[in-house]
Amino acid sequence: MNNFEFYNPTRIIFGKDTQKQIGKYVKKYSSNILLHYGKDSIKKNGIYADVILSLKDAGIAYTELSGVQPNPRVSLVRQGIKICKDQKIDFILAVGGGSVIDSAKAIALGIKYNGDVWDLFTRKAASENSVPVGVILTIPAAGSESSPNSVITNEEESMKLAVSYPNLRPVFAILNPAFCFSLPKEQLGYGVCDMMAHIFERYFTQTQFTELTDKLCEGTLRTIINNSSIILKNFNDYNAWAEIMFAGNIAHNGLLGMGRKEDWASHGIEHALSAVYDIPHGAGLSIVFPAWMKYVYKENIPLFVKFALNVWNVNGNLKNSEEIALKGIEETEKFFKSLNLPIRLGELNIEENNIEIMAKKATVFGSLGSFKELNTEDVIAIYKLAL
Amino acid sequence: MNNFEFYNPTRIIFGKDTQKQIGKYVKKYSSNILLHYGKDSIKKNGIYADVILSLKDAGIAYTELSGVQPNPRVSLVRQGIKICKDQKIDFILAVGGGSVIDSAKAIALGIKYNGDVWDLFTRKAASENSVPVGVILTIPAAGSESSPNSVITNEEESMKLAVSYPNLRPVFAILNPAFCFSLPKEQLGYGVCDMMAHIFERYFTQTQFTELTDKLCEGTLRTIINNSSIILKNFNDYNAWAEIMFAGNIAHNGLLGMGRKEDWASHGIEHALSAVYDIPHGAGLSIVFPAWMKYVYKENIPLFVKFALNVWNVNGNLKNSEEIALKGIEETEKFFKSLNLPIRLGELNIEENNIEIMAKKATVFGSLGSFKELNTEDVIAIYKLAL
Repeated sequence: MNNFEFYNPTRIIFGKDTQKQIGKYVKKYSSNILLHYGKDSIKKNGIYADVILSLKDAGIAYTELSGVQPNPRVSLVRQGIKICKDQKIDFILAVGGGSVIDSAKAIALGIKYNGDVWDLFTRKAASENSVPVGVILTIPAAGSESSPNSVITNEEESMKLAVSYPNLRPVFAILNPAFCFSLPKEQLGYGVCDMMAHIFERYFTQTQFTELTDKLCEGTLRTIINNSSIILKNFNDYNAWAEIMFAGNIAHNGLLGMGRKEDWASHGIEHALSAVYDIPHGAGLSIVFPAWMKYVYKENIPLFVKFALNVWNVNGNLKNSEEIALKGIEETEKFFKSLNLPIRLGELNIEENNIEIMAKKATVFGSLGSFKELNTEDVIAIYKLAL
Repeated sequence: MNNFEFYNPTRIIFGKDTQKQIGKYVKKYSSNILLHYGKDSIKKNGIYADVILSLKDAGIAYTELSGVQPNPRVSLVRQGIKICKDQKIDFILAVGGGSVIDSAKAIALGIKYNGDVWDLFTRKAASENSVPVGVILTIPAAGSESSPNSVITNEEESMKLAVSYPNLRPVFAILNPAFCFSLPKEQLGYGVCDMMAHIFERYFTQTQFTELTDKLCEGTLRTIINNSSIILKNFNDYNAWAEIMFAGNIAHNGLLGMGRKEDWASHGIEHALSAVYDIPHGAGLSIVFPAWMKYVYKENIPLFVKFALNVWNVNGNLKNSEEIALKGIEETEKFFKSLNLPIRLGELNIEENNIEIMAKKATVFGSLGSFKELNTEDVIAIYKLAL
């Protein structure tokens, strides 16, 4: 086990009707906030009305900024920063999924920075200060509700960049599994794949002596697998969504990576893919991860055997370790397919022609990953395995 | 799954030589601290020298208060409060195990309270304020390094009482598994039983739909079981102690009980036992828990079957569910025995005569537990099962 430091002070408020208490939680920090969200879906499913009522009851003034898109844009972030500076707003309440939360974090950072917030993403400047962000999570997937990261797209420069500052962890996050009932059906697969990928990036490591976090990863993966199958049959199963929503938070709150070297190559490979082709992150991951696994499993067959046995209950009587390891990868693919996720580029009509461009984009800052360090040629080979 | 709120802002700093950075972590909070510890063991194993050097390097003034005993006394707490008030000390650094940490928390609370600190334990008064506490953990067991609780004994009144305030969670805890090499050998069993008991109190619940935390409990228990067996063979196995120390923290940081009704009857039964007979908490738990299990398992046989299968790998081909459940309890006993822990009162020469007194003591504030609610008669029956 490697030395590590774990610090996650996000207050998780979980369960039925918890959004109705939002005023009480915000009040500890501010009486003048930015209410940040995406589309009108929060008005249709009733969350908006609950939030407004609770904010008013608590005497909290709010200014609305909606319109956050998937791959949240720096233009809207800049607009948010201006509003907050003009109106002396010192708290951002994000109501939505990962994109809304990331946008809120960028605004929170920009308020405390005298300059263009994009400088912090390009590393032209650094600034740790930010106003607090609170979250009402409506989509279990990205784990941004208690992570220190924000990923923002600069649409003019066609760049998608991330920052990570400890202060960006939201001060609280409200998670009500009942919100999931109104999600578009395809979001189950995308969300589940996103959270499983967050665990894979931590689970597949060359660090030795990591039994506790191995087991926590395996248990969380099993829970996600079992409960997404339940939701496939009954989309309004509260208890199954509760497991998924809780697991999505645990998957990315940092705990599962403690003491181990994390990988993150597949995320790099996926980002290049979804930058060239406008596909959902979850769909990119369900294509990239199986290909990555097939390319790297020989670097640590015992770990892939453990994955097959403990996560997929693969029959341990197969001919040899390698066969068990490969069966685990096959089961991963089968599961993604069962969630209506693509597992090959061809399914999205993506052909060979842009592979080199994507591989160069993915490795523009150098090699990827640590389970097996991947250069441009390796990434090309992985895209080809995914065709 | 029940609604829940999870908030644990203790920074966990884990690994080799981490104590050498103590000055850096303390400096964020104070330059004038109380250094609180138990016996001279921290001088023999080198921790004391490392701490003093780092505090001096960081320019931190410290006043020492040693002498914390198991079952920490309110008299020493009062002494600590007086020193801190006189010298305007605003931070307590606890170097030790659960007793030292609990004593430090009580001092931290008393500094901010104008009156006798014992009033807060008897509930004569309430006061949430406290100065921050930092920890260097030397004994993995009690989980006090990131819990909000403190248990203090009033030796004049023969009373042992607890307080729990969110602010009492230490601001940081340094966990170096190498410290465990110098522990007395019997501490392995006591510590392991204490942390397993913290999980049992959460795992055995009547709350339904708790798959994620069930699996996290099971994985943490398996890790504790596997690695304590390794340590039995080689007491200086760093990696095995790392798993135990990490697991002991997870066992009691609150996560494993989220969304479920916790029990805590066995702790109540043990506290009455160790109040009458001066036995280690871990040894009391290894006697009480198997007896409690035998008394209550019929209230939820499927959960005890799951426990047997997933924690103890009991052969699922046994005759019926009840047999599997009982086999799981038997395995628990066998494991405790393998760690040289007592599993019957007789092993400690405790006979029947005080059972009624203890049962009344245990239920003085009413019935115990929620898995099965236990009255005085039930507790008598459990003590008898433990004879």
